[in-house]
Order: sequence, then structure tokens, then C-alpha cells
Amino acid sequence: MNPKQFRLEYLARLVQGEHVGQSDLILEGLASLDAAQAKHIAFVNADKYLDQARASKAGALIVTPTLKNQLDTHNNFIVVDNPYLAFAILTHVFEKKNQHQGIESTAQIHPSAMIADSAYIGHYVVIGEHCVVGDHTIIQSHVKIDHDIEIGQHCFIDSHVTLTGDTKIGDRVRIHANTVIGGEGFGFAPYQGKWHRIAQLGSVKIGNDVRIGSNCSIDRGALDDTILEDGVIIDNLVQIAHNVKIGANTALAAKCGIAGSTTIGKNCVLAGAVGVVGHINIADNVTITGMSMVTKSISEAGSYSSGTPMLESLHWKRAAVRFKQLADVPLTQLLKRLDHIQAQIESLESTFKRK
Amino acid sequence: MNPKQFRLEYLARLVQGEHVGQSDLILEGLASLDAAQAKHIAFVNADKYLDQARASKAGALIVTPTLKNQLDTHNNFIVVDNPYLAFAILTHVFEKKNQHQGIESTAQIHPSAMIADSAYIGHYVVIGEHCVVGDHTIIQSHVKIDHDIEIGQHCFIDSHVTLTGDTKIGDRVRIHANTVIGGEGFGFAPYQGKWHRIAQLGSVKIGNDVRIGSNCSIDRGALDDTILEDGVIIDNLVQIAHNVKIGANTALAAKCGIAGSTTIGKNCVLAGAVGVVGHINIADNVTITGMSMVTKSISEAGSYSSGTPMLESLHWKRAAVRFKQLADVPLTQLLKRLDHIQAQIESLESTFKRK
Amino acid sequence: MNPKQFRLEYLARLVQGEHVGQSDLILEGLASLDAAQAKHIAFVNADKYLDQARASKAGALIVTPTLKNQLDTHNNFIVVDNPYLAFAILTHVFEKKNQHQGIESTAQIHPSAMIADSAYIGHYVVIGEHCVVGDHTIIQSHVKIDHDIEIGQHCFIDSHVTLTGDTKIGDRVRIHANTVIGGEGFGFAPYQGKWHRIAQLGSVKIGNDVRIGSNCSIDRGALDDTILEDGVIIDNLVQIAHNVKIGANTALAAKCGIAGSTTIGKNCVLAGAVGVVGHINIADNVTITGMSMVTKSISEAGSYSSGTPMLESLHWKRAAVRFKQLADVPLTQLLKRLDHIQAQIESLESTFKRK
Repeated sequence: MNPKQFRLEYLARLVQGEHVGQSDLILEGLASLDAAQAKHIAFVNADKYLDQARASKAGALIVTPTLKNQLDTHNNFIVVDNPYLAFAILTHVFEKKNQHQGIESTAQIHPSAMIADSAYIGHYVVIGEHCVVGDHTIIQSHVKIDHDIEIGQHCFIDSHVTLTGDTKIGDRVRIHANTVIGGEGFGFAPYQGKWHRIAQLGSVKIGNDVRIGSNCSIDRGALDDTILEDGVIIDNLVQIAHNVKIGANTALAAKCGIAGSTTIGKNCVLAGAVGVVGHINIADNVTITGMSMVTKSISEAGSYSSGTPMLESLHWKRAAVRFKQLADVPLTQLLKRLDHIQAQIESLESTFKRK
Repeated sequence: MNPKQFRLEYLARLVQGEHVGQSDLILEGLASLDAAQAKHIAFVNADKYLDQARASKAGALIVTPTLKNQLDTHNNFIVVDNPYLAFAILTHVFEKKNQHQGIESTAQIHPSAMIADSAYIGHYVVIGEHCVVGDHTIIQSHVKIDHDIEIGQHCFIDSHVTLTGDTKIGDRVRIHANTVIGGEGFGFAPYQGKWHRIAQLGSVKIGNDVRIGSNCSIDRGALDDTILEDGVIIDNLVQIAHNVKIGANTALAAKCGIAGSTTIGKNCVLAGAVGVVGHINIADNVTITGMSMVTKSISEAGSYSSGTPMLESLHWKRAAVRFKQLADVPLTQLLKRLDHIQAQIESLESTFKRK
Repeated sequence: MNPKQFRLEYLARLVQGEHVGQSDLILEGLASLDAAQAKHIAFVNADKYLDQARASKAGALIVTPTLKNQLDTHNNFIVVDNPYLAFAILTHVFEKKNQHQGIESTAQIHPSAMIADSAYIGHYVVIGEHCVVGDHTIIQSHVKIDHDIEIGQHCFIDSHVTLTGDTKIGDRVRIHANTVIGGEGFGFAPYQGKWHRIAQLGSVKIGNDVRIGSNCSIDRGALDDTILEDGVIIDNLVQIAHNVKIGANTALAAKCGIAGSTTIGKNCVLAGAVGVVGHINIADNVTITGMSMVTKSISEAGSYSSGTPMLESLHWKRAAVRFKQLADVPLTQLLKRLDHIQAQIESLESTFKRK
């Protein structure tokens, strides 16, 4: 398998950058500064990587004008304002792509389903009644697409994904392996000591340019829909309960869990393993640090946290015991008492001196 | 596809309620108060929803007698004592059901397996030696049922579920997509700096009316079995380790994890992402709030919590630094010292006055 | 199906132990002390299990010499230094094994793939271009092996596993059901309010004797590789982000999450649901207790913790409120103030007495 080969000049043009040095230098891949060889191009994003850059064997470097001036160890550059973005763009040039079109002979597709000619349907895919798969969409092997599912154009659905619950998916959506979308929400009415299942009649609506990682569970709504707006990106092992709404361009890192009927605004970032309770609202532009527990609505943009810092275990045990005691230690009152005592002493002292 | 249509009178009878208004009103679906149209029925469960109810375009409302008296905006009602339960019952009326029976031609079923005539076995299902699938049970596409698995009647097993480890499943059990039951427990004997795998010889026993969400892992026991009693309900992405026992009608919300050999009682509720350490016992009727860390047995019914509340991040950082310091601040002693100092001052003051 | 049957003498020899009692006693299985019957052998690992051992109906017991001397209730023993290790070894004797070889007729294997004759490839497995499957490796049904994947000898890959991203896997590796290895790392460059996907060009390298549980996600690197060294063991529902490196023989319990580019040393143990932030280093021989949040590098071997202990919920609420207040309570200064006040009072008292 021959690797992809591109000229420096060509790559510079792709990222709207300036090439410096040997314009016809042949490059076969992107690499990190440490791992790069003469056939690779690497990127430098900040002053702190200059030493690594100087020691790198990369054939060419993607840099800012300022960084370039500090690098006399290399001759070949692509000069841009935002090297990280240029790198992001070039990753697509070197990516191996699934170029297949058409339907593998082992796929089971209901006659009422409409599959675009330019789509690819992998082995052992099952597609039910009234489904739609758009142009240039790739459905990898073993995907289950239940009835009444619609998938837009240029989507990528990896193996073992289960799509059910009448889910509707926009364009350029990527769903990674073994994720379940449209599963039944966790709704039960307690009655006489037992749980009575509430059939979930809603659906899931996913906008354009959404990315969902592997092993995620995104449940369909009870009556209304669970909604992911355009540009939402979600990492692996994330739980989105029924009737959650997530605003455009919000990012959820791995292992987050959002309980039922919660609304999260636009442009939020939830770091790893954040848990959000049900039936609350989170404003736009909110950042929540890793493993935080969100138990009430957040109405102001900003950064929020919970938890305790990691300590050596014996130190932690002492602090943890004190945390228990805190319940019975009136901290603010304690400060007031101290102030009061201080005043009493000063009064005593001054009276005493006067005598 | 024609929607289901039912008369108000009929729906009222199904929930043992009284219909008020136009008995032959045709209803085509359930909806939330906000989304409901004239063809929908919605439910009102508490006074706080009265304004929403008044503004709702729903053709009919499910209410209590008291709520009905406060709603002169609508004419058609189903009056019951428990509107939420009535709603739960009616969701099943409007649910689209898989009516299929029989075995898809692509299913691979070992000749020794016994499949009820009324069961449905989807495409690409694989069923091994000595398995049993009961009446009216639905096995969706791509399910893997290893050897010696027994599944009762009226069960629903969604796509990509893996059943292994000689798992035995009762009646009316629902297992959602991509869940793994009976996988090998995480058992290793450390010896000379390496981990020596302990083959897991136990199984998983699941009672009747159990519900398990998507992407869950429920491991088989090391020697004895992992047990879920009747009526247990489990949300998505939950980990149940080997030899765990969960009592009847206990509910586990998404992302909970129960470590090995722990026993949880009946009628407990674990909110989202609760973690329970191994080899402990939790009594009946225990509630544990979200993201709590349970590190020791709980012998009394009640509600338990851990963690810290969410704060604005800069506020949190100051509190977190203080948490570290707590280890070296003798809080209870501090209060005693304050009391002691107070006494000393008062003594000084009184002596002083006497002079 | 006849159970396996072994003589006591034979089992003792397998674990290099001494048999005591009836050497030709026939044993049909391992069992826990409580569940064991006359046909079973059970193990006793510590003094605290002696009462249970005395009451056990087990036909034979695996014990240390010291424990044997305290057990006059039984006649048949295997005596070894490490009963738990002996038990671990014997589990493999009684384990039902998949003895199949060859390729099921429904597997889809690309002509360029190389499958060892002694390997087993289950139903509906899909294997792409240039893949390699080594001797005696078992690939269960519905596994997806994308192109350019290499799997060593004596591996076990359970159903619905997805292997992609050019993953390379050593010998004797076990990967449990529905796990995804080599999925696309979560890499996006933010630009003008949107997320720009970074194609992930790295891979995953897995050493020998690695064990990975069910429903795990192990992402491929962005440029370099994600690496699991020899002997790493991982439980269920674990997230390993792109470019993580995990040192030899490190154990990760269920629900751990390791963010991108973090390096974890050798022989570490991370208990359940530990979260580790990205771009840090954890030294060798580090233990981290359950649900801890690791936000900075750990350079010293030892045990580390975070979180707060579980409390009755009302008690917890009071402590949690105080945690918030801690931000404005200068704890260490408070102790100094107390000391200062104490000194002032003592000074006052002594001056007072002198008068």
C-alpha cells in the first residue's frame, strides 16, 4: 500500500499558509515533533515546544511567523496564524478514507427503506421499514437501523451502533462504534411497591455536524424528543437521558451523564465524568470541570466545580473525618466568636492599662 | 401508516377512571401539556402544572378530581386518583409494538436450542447449544446468545446484546441494546508481580420483571452466581460486578457501579453514578443520592450522600485548599478551645470587676 | 453433558501441593465454602474463614499447613502455601472451554487477511484487508475487525467487539464483549465558535497478556499511538483516551476514565471509577482509591484518595454547606489567632496575678 504523498507547496495552499524552503519537498505524513522523520511534517503551537521543535527530525514544520523566527534548525515551513487549526485541516489529507459505495450483499434492507446510491452499507447491516440513508453516508458492518430512522448526507456510523426509537439524524454526523441512540428512556411509575414501565413515545433529534463517541447511550424522550443541536460533540461512554436538550456546539467529554429533562445551553464544555441531575437548566457558555456533580440550575456563564482535591490517602482520611465533623462546627459563627473574643481581650487590656 | 385511534370513553375504562365530556372524542396519542394538540391527551399531576394545563391545546386531560375542579378551560377529562399511573398505563396503548413472530432466515440457531413458536428471532442472531427462548419473547437482530442460556416468556432483548456465562433470565425481562450479561468477572490472583486470571465458574440469575438499560455490564460470578431479584430496574451504562446480589424492586440509575460480592437490599434507590465498594451489605429501603461513594455497609434504611456541592470554580479552589488543611485543623478541639477561652475571659472580667 | 471429574491426587499435583486423605476422591467442581457439596473442592485463605470452613460440606479443602491444623472437621485436603493461587489455577481445570477451530461459513473475511488454521472465527464476523489472526485465537460471533488489524496467538475476542484504527494486539490477550478498540480519539480544534475535527492518525498497541473488560472504549492516538503494555488488566466500562500509555501489570477497575496523553506507570492499581485528567504522569506502584479525581501528576509511589465519606443525607447537607463556607474561613490563620489569643489571656492572667 503506497502512502499518500504531497508537496510542501500543495499542503501550504490547503491551509492558506505560506510555504518557506523547498516547495517541492515530498511529505508522506503528519507526526508529533518527537516521532517525526524527514518525510513528516509536524506542528509547533507555542514557545514551550521550541526546544522539542529544534530537536525534531521533521522534514517541515507548521509554525506562526513569530515561532519561525526562533527556529534556525529547520529550513522548510508552512507559516500560518493558527498552526493547530492548520494541523487539524491536514489530518484529513492524510487520513485513510473508506471509499466504498453500494450495499454489501449480506445487508438486510427492508424494501420500503430509501438508500442513496452513493451511500455505503456494510456487511450484516439491518435496516428496517421506512428508513432513509442520505448521499455519501457510510454505515459500517453490523449496524442495526430500526424502522422509521432517517440519516442525512455524509454521515459515518461505525460498527455495532444501534439506532432505534424513530431517531432523526442530520448531515455530516459521526457516530462511533457500539453506541445506542433512541433506546427506551428510564421511566417508571412507582405504585404499590412496584415499578410500572412507562413506554417511551418520544424520539431523538440530532442536528448537523454532531459527533458522538463509542459506547454512548442516548435515550429517546418519554413524550417529547431528546435533542442534540448542530455542532454538539460528545466523547465515549456518555449517558444522555430522555428529554435532555443540548445546545449548539456544546462539548461533553467522556463518561458524562445528563439525567432526564435537563437543558444544557450552547457553547458549554463539560469535562470528563461530569454528572448533571435531571430537570435543571444550564446557561450558555458554561464550563464545568471534571467529575463535578451539578445538582441545580446554572443561570450565569462561567466555570463551575465540585469535589475535593487528591491527597495522599492517610492525609485524605484525616481531612475526610474533619469533613464529617464540619456538620457540627458553625464555621462562620466561629469567626464571629473569635472576633468577639478578640474585642473582649482588647477591652480588658485597655481597661487594665488605664488602671 | 395510520396512527392508532381510541375513544375517550375507552381510554378511561382502561385506567379505571371516569370520563367527563365527549365520550366518543377520538384521541390519537399522548403528549406533554406544551406539545399537545386537539388529537392528544395529556396528564396533569400537581397544582404546579395548572397554568400549563390551562394553556394546553390538548383535546383531553387526565386529572384528579381536585385538579379537574380548577380547570374550566377544558371540557374533556379522564378523572383518576393517580394521573401519572394512568398515563403510564396509556403509554402502552399508544406504543408501536413489534408484532413479529418466527425466526428470520439469517439467524444461526443450534439444533439443541429450544425456541418457542411464538417467539421472534431477528436477523443475524446467533443462539448456541442448549439454549431456551420462551413464548412471545422478542430477540432483536445481532443478539449473541451463547450456550446454556435460558430466557423466559414475554422478554425483550434488543440488538447487539451479548448473553453468555450460562445466564438464566425470568419472564417479562427487558434488556436494552449493546448490554453484556454473564461476561467474565474481574478476578485475578496477584503472584510474583503478575496477575493470574481466575476463570469465572459462576453464572447470572435474573428474576422476573427485571429491566436493564443499554451498554450495561453484568458479570457472572466467580463460583456462586450474580443475582438480580424480581422487579429490579437498571438504567444505562451500569456496572454490576461478579457475585453482586440486588434485592427485589431496587432501582439503579445510569452509570452506577457495584463492586464484587456486595449485597443490596430490596426497594432501594441508587441515583445516577453512585459507586459502591465490594464485599459490603446495604439494607432494604436505602436511598443513595447521585454520585455518592459508598465505602461501608449501610444497616439502616434512610437516605445517604457524599460529595461536595458545585461552586463557581474560583470559590471552589479556595474551599478545596481548605479541605486539604482540614487534615491538620482539630475542629472539635477548636470549639472546645474557644469555649475554654471564653470561660477564661469571663473569669478574668468578673475577677476584674470585683476588684 | 457430563461434568468434568478429577481425582484429588491429580488436582494436588496441578498446583504443586500435597494431598491429604483419600487420594482417589472424585471432584467435579470448585465451589464457595457455603455452596460446596461433597463433590466439590473449596479453598480457605485466612483464619477468619475457619468457622465457615468447618461448617462447609465440601468434599475437600485447599488450605495452608497452618489452617489444616485447625480443621479437624474435614479429612481431604490439598495443602499449599498460597490457597488463593491454587484456587486460581484450578478454576482453569473446571472451566468450559471453546474448543472450536476453523471459520464459520457466515464469516466475511477479506482475501488478503491471514487467519491461522488453529484459530476459530465465529458467525457473522467481518475481517477486513491485511488483517492477521494468530494461532489458537478465538474470535466470537459478530466481531468487527477493520483493515490492517493484527491479533496474536491464544487470544480471546468476545462477541460484538469492534477493532479498528490499525490496532495491533499481542499474544494471550482477552477482550470482552462489546468493547471498542482503536476508535477515533476526541480531538477537535476550536475555531470561530465551532469544533473542527482532527482526524486521528495514530493507532493502539496492546502488549501480551492484556485483559480488557466489556463495554470499554480505547481510542487510537492522534499522531502517536495509545499503548497498553504487557500484563495490563482492565475491568468493564473503562475509557482510555487517545495517546494514553499504561505501564506493565497495571490494573484498572471498572468505570475508570483516563484522559488524553496521560502516562500511568507500571504495577499501579486504580480502583473503581477513578478519573485521571489528561497530560499528566503517574509514577510506578501508585494505588488510587475508588472514585478519586486525579488532577495532577503523581511522582511518588504510594496510595492516594479524594472525595468525601458517605453520610446520612441530612448530616451531609450540613457538612456540605460548611464546605462552601470553608472558602472564606482562613483555617490555618484561625489556629494562629487562637494561639495568639491564648497567649494574650495568659499574659493578662499573669499580669493580673502579679498586681
